[in-house]
Amino acid sequence: MAGMNKLRGVLSPVLTPFNADYSVSASRFIGHCRTLIKLNVGLAVFGTNSEANSLSVKEKRQLLDLLVEEGLPAGKMMPGTGCCAVSDSIELTRHAVSAGCAGVLMLPPFYYKGVSDEGLFRNYATVIDTIADARLRIYLYHIPHVTQVGIGFDLIERLLKAYPDTVAGIKDSSGDWNHTLALINRFQPDGFDVFAGSEPFLLQTLRHGGAGCITATGNVNAAAIARLNATWNDDTADSQQQELDTVRNIFQKFPMIPAMKSAIARQTGTPEWSILRPPLVELTEDQARQLQHDLSAIDFHPNELSDTLAS
Amino acid sequence: MAGMNKLRGVLSPVLTPFNADYSVSASRFIGHCRTLIKLNVGLAVFGTNSEANSLSVKEKRQLLDLLVEEGLPAGKMMPGTGCCAVSDSIELTRHAVSAGCAGVLMLPPFYYKGVSDEGLFRNYATVIDTIADARLRIYLYHIPHVTQVGIGFDLIERLLKAYPDTVAGIKDSSGDWNHTLALINRFQPDGFDVFAGSEPFLLQTLRHGGAGCITATGNVNAAAIARLNATWNDDTADSQQQELDTVRNIFQKFPMIPAMKSAIARQTGTPEWSILRPPLVELTEDQARQLQHDLSAIDFHPNELSDTLAS
Repeated sequence: MAGMNKLRGVLSPVLTPFNADYSVSASRFIGHCRTLIKLNVGLAVFGTNSEANSLSVKEKRQLLDLLVEEGLPAGKMMPGTGCCAVSDSIELTRHAVSAGCAGVLMLPPFYYKGVSDEGLFRNYATVIDTIADARLRIYLYHIPHVTQVGIGFDLIERLLKAYPDTVAGIKDSSGDWNHTLALINRFQPDGFDVFAGSEPFLLQTLRHGGAGCITATGNVNAAAIARLNATWNDDTADSQQQELDTVRNIFQKFPMIPAMKSAIARQTGTPEWSILRPPLVELTEDQARQLQHDLSAIDFHPNELSDTLAS
Repeated sequence: MAGMNKLRGVLSPVLTPFNADYSVSASRFIGHCRTLIKLNVGLAVFGTNSEANSLSVKEKRQLLDLLVEEGLPAGKMMPGTGCCAVSDSIELTRHAVSAGCAGVLMLPPFYYKGVSDEGLFRNYATVIDTIADARLRIYLYHIPHVTQVGIGFDLIERLLKAYPDTVAGIKDSSGDWNHTLALINRFQPDGFDVFAGSEPFLLQTLRHGGAGCITATGNVNAAAIARLNATWNDDTADSQQQELDTVRNIFQKFPMIPAMKSAIARQTGTPEWSILRPPLVELTEDQARQLQHDLSAIDFHPNELSDTLAS
């Protein structure tokens, strides 16, 4: 895979804004994507924090088409395309390749539990063989506390052996640094890009040769996370990481997706930003007040473009 | 709900037959549905044992259309329509109502874990309010070891209060008889139909006033299970239940879906019946041999029409 223009650095599972009737707000979605791109954060649209599994295949296809039509750079996109049904994963993945996306982030099928590596291998192999397009780059998505179906080392090895040009990396959302480190040590030397699942592990990931991070908090603290990625060799790196952690820790005290949406709703003066599709729900009024209090205490405001672009 | 022609008795999550390229075999699907209907087993198509979450929304719509076109009785159908995305659940549920199905069996959205009852209530309420059709009958699907998202008593109570004419019952696949009994005692007197999730609990369910069972093994032992349902007041009931359990215990020693497909493949002389979509896989050769050995030892053959229809 040497010489490929591969995705590295910071990406964010882009929050999906809804209207009161639970339809997607296309205009706010595009606006938010534009902000992230300006702040040097790539678009891992349709991730866990995007409520992607609360969107239909058709809705995801339409939104990706819209992004491309609106001139957002497909070369900085890594849409989530892994579904329970391999037929859906094929449709979404093929569509992403056609749109020119740099890669796709693929959950394993997550309905059935206790499935075998053979079954998971067949799932990915069926997608790759059916699409049969040299442009396809798949990033595996390991998030076992949500899927309950993990992606183990043996499976990665088997996939890399069978599809070395297609299986491009992994997002490790295990939340366990030792697991991320083991992935980097074993697979990164071969060009298999390991992304930490959140920015608390960004500096360590980069120092050990990993590719970056794909992080929810990129939706609200994009510029600072991207800055650490760009300057991790500087003397300021450790203190930058500390500052990132301070922000992350506030959001993590609450359900993350509603908390980020609440903060953006307040920052942008758009109450509708707080809306989530069922089964997720917005913060309670008490939680929203507490979040605002905590963020004000550190003078944090989501994605202040004027500040961050000037820096 | 008194006076409604409600589904009762035995239904089966109909196995979905695939071809070698993982496409659905429409002809074998229809044939299998015809067999079950002849044997007095209703069609809970698109259940867990149907590998329904390995099928796309479009595939499920087409298969349901096909069944109706082929003259299978929609009044004996309870398709699974609960998806992760409420937009998908709405589409499939509306389609099932239009097709005249007696009811739908709805999983809760199962990607996000630790979700609130408020979020689950909104999921079902959004489906019901959006479809807004008096013909809609929803059966809740409680299968926590797979979904990791359960349907608790408080949620049922809230749904029944809000939608007494629509929320019609539950399939309890907890595998815990005490849980099924508690559901019957609390909700069945109000006409909320409690179905056991498998036939080992059929006799107890009927004796306590429950509605029947929706069971995987209905795919292979349809006639005998339906017979117990019809004759549970007879002196033979306990020995019938024992015989059902003997068969069930054999299939349960193996992964259930591949085991049932293997038995049907052998019985019908159609090796393709053994195929499963990823992430599930067929039995190993050793497992298939062992299953055949165990079934031969009790002289069991899946759905022998000549025998069962004559009785």
